[in-house]
Amino acid sequence: MSLKLGIIGSGQLARMMALDSLQMGVQFSFLAEPKEDTRCVQNLGTVVVRDADHDAAALYLDLGHPDVITVEKEHVDISLMRGLAEHCPVHPNPNALEKFKNRLNEKQFLQSLNIPLAPFHSVKNKYDFDLAVAKLNKPVFLKSEENGYDGYNQWKVTDANAEEVRTELPFPGDWVAESFIPFEREVSFLAVRSSNGNINYYPPVENVHRNGTLLTSTAPALDISAEQLALARKYLNDIFLAVDYVGVICMECFDWDGKILVNEIAPRVHNSGHWTTQGAATSQFENHVRAVLNLTAGSTEINGVSGMLNLLGVTLTAQQVLDADTSLILYDKITRPRRKLGHVTVNHPQRSVIKARLAALQKQVYEE
Amino acid sequence: MSLKLGIIGSGQLARMMALDSLQMGVQFSFLAEPKEDTRCVQNLGTVVVRDADHDAAALYLDLGHPDVITVEKEHVDISLMRGLAEHCPVHPNPNALEKFKNRLNEKQFLQSLNIPLAPFHSVKNKYDFDLAVAKLNKPVFLKSEENGYDGYNQWKVTDANAEEVRTELPFPGDWVAESFIPFEREVSFLAVRSSNGNINYYPPVENVHRNGTLLTSTAPALDISAEQLALARKYLNDIFLAVDYVGVICMECFDWDGKILVNEIAPRVHNSGHWTTQGAATSQFENHVRAVLNLTAGSTEINGVSGMLNLLGVTLTAQQVLDADTSLILYDKITRPRRKLGHVTVNHPQRSVIKARLAALQKQVYEE
Repeated sequence: MSLKLGIIGSGQLARMMALDSLQMGVQFSFLAEPKEDTRCVQNLGTVVVRDADHDAAALYLDLGHPDVITVEKEHVDISLMRGLAEHCPVHPNPNALEKFKNRLNEKQFLQSLNIPLAPFHSVKNKYDFDLAVAKLNKPVFLKSEENGYDGYNQWKVTDANAEEVRTELPFPGDWVAESFIPFEREVSFLAVRSSNGNINYYPPVENVHRNGTLLTSTAPALDISAEQLALARKYLNDIFLAVDYVGVICMECFDWDGKILVNEIAPRVHNSGHWTTQGAATSQFENHVRAVLNLTAGSTEINGVSGMLNLLGVTLTAQQVLDADTSLILYDKITRPRRKLGHVTVNHPQRSVIKARLAALQKQVYEE
Repeated sequence: MSLKLGIIGSGQLARMMALDSLQMGVQFSFLAEPKEDTRCVQNLGTVVVRDADHDAAALYLDLGHPDVITVEKEHVDISLMRGLAEHCPVHPNPNALEKFKNRLNEKQFLQSLNIPLAPFHSVKNKYDFDLAVAKLNKPVFLKSEENGYDGYNQWKVTDANAEEVRTELPFPGDWVAESFIPFEREVSFLAVRSSNGNINYYPPVENVHRNGTLLTSTAPALDISAEQLALARKYLNDIFLAVDYVGVICMECFDWDGKILVNEIAPRVHNSGHWTTQGAATSQFENHVRAVLNLTAGSTEINGVSGMLNLLGVTLTAQQVLDADTSLILYDKITRPRRKLGHVTVNHPQRSVIKARLAALQKQVYEE
């Protein structure tokens, strides 16, 4: 008897969940929005394009009566997810998804759990804007409450451009202003919670962004103190329990002055965990599928050091990048500027080799 | 620019080659014989069913002008492979495939390289049969020169049944009689040779067969002496060079009295290397694809100990077998007695845990 998993979304995360799990006997279906490019999941299962007649019952039927439904993105229709949850388990559950869909709700939720964040301010109008700019460390990052990711729908406000941004922004609006944190680095913590409540943690990951988009990840991150690690895991545990979360979660943080400040939560598999397919005993994709299907999670142990370089708007061929320690993962997408088209992973016992390989690959991909 | 690989065959080996490699940008096509079950490779690429009008040129066209053609089985039409080799590289090359297609040719080839084998005797008629039974250690294994695998087309000849076998066998025929070797265990050596001549070795694998079919593999095999390992690698190197072999090869051996006797060569990825997908840095499937496509092979390093149990005529569900150290791989085939339907892999730092898990899984699969 095979297991049937419906995924809301049809991008590369859905693709990698399917490819990393279909051999254990899972059948997939995918829900795409009307104009969504579904090349990533072509041939990996049924693709359903949402139309106006699709209420939850009709969707559940078209998705092939899945045993469980999960998501590959934050920006989902929460009332639809609640409707689907009347037909089969939805993991993470709609209440959990709701917390993380809206940036302001998310920060208020994390604050309620006493999880440290960068200072922030809700900005609905020009008065809020002025207050936020006056109170917060500059540059202030102004982000839309919803639909902002990878640097889209974000403004960087300095003393020099504050007046200009104030004029250009459509007010009233739903924005969140965040203090600049002079962080030493960005670190993410990935973990998977199973249906039975067991939690497995991946080692912390050090991330480098470029223009608001993840460029490289290295795992395990060096020099995370035992105290920082324990705190980060406590935050994850508190989040898991507060919303009865099931699946993989990613907590993106600033490492600043020995503290861990949470920047944002991704309630799904995450780009900073892509190295796990080659670098960990069980990939984040397989473990998310295992968890939501009520299967025992696989080991999250890592062997040596892993690095990942995103291919943003550029692809290279296997001939160009492969080496003994290197893997290439392409998403089969049409090339567009800045678009995530694939990634390269590197695995080696020595950190210095990973660092050098990532630097060389980055040069090869972006400067040649 | 994507790479196109044509595979002769459409079974689970073709399936795993595709699933382990398609993300690096490889497009697959598969050649199936007229009544071959092609469920294994459904949706993984173009499936071409061979018909009477298919000469090499027509097949090459139908396979989508692949950049390279490879095989997933020994029993291929060598003249067809030679024809295809006029259109694109075929790896392993047809001369190499020819050596291993016929059991007698294979043994004579290995003998010509001074590779030690169990004593054998060509049996074409009753006279040969009598001579072989008289000369060789009993029980004598009588195997057809071609089309025998996994215990099919084999006879075990003892003093008690020699007369009966002699009467029942269709003579003249093409058989090879092999001496019984009171081996301590069966060990296989897998390696991959790249187009540039580089060779990467997987650690030796200890195998247990049941009714002539592989049941479990454990890697790395314990207590292979440095001398045995060096000899096994020398044999592989000699074979590689003698036929300019490109791709993964598996050398199945008897470990007997401190010696390594070669039992047979599989010129392809092999069941005793299935654990590499979860247990090695790069799977045999990905490395075969890399090698034949003239890409750099990936590391064959192994982390801890890996075990594999074949699911023969039986499947279990993910719910039944998954544990933190366990993966399930199903081939999506229709159940038939003894048929290879999937396998389970186990990875753990400790050998004793692997041994216990394999024993428990075997009990669960075959005795419950």
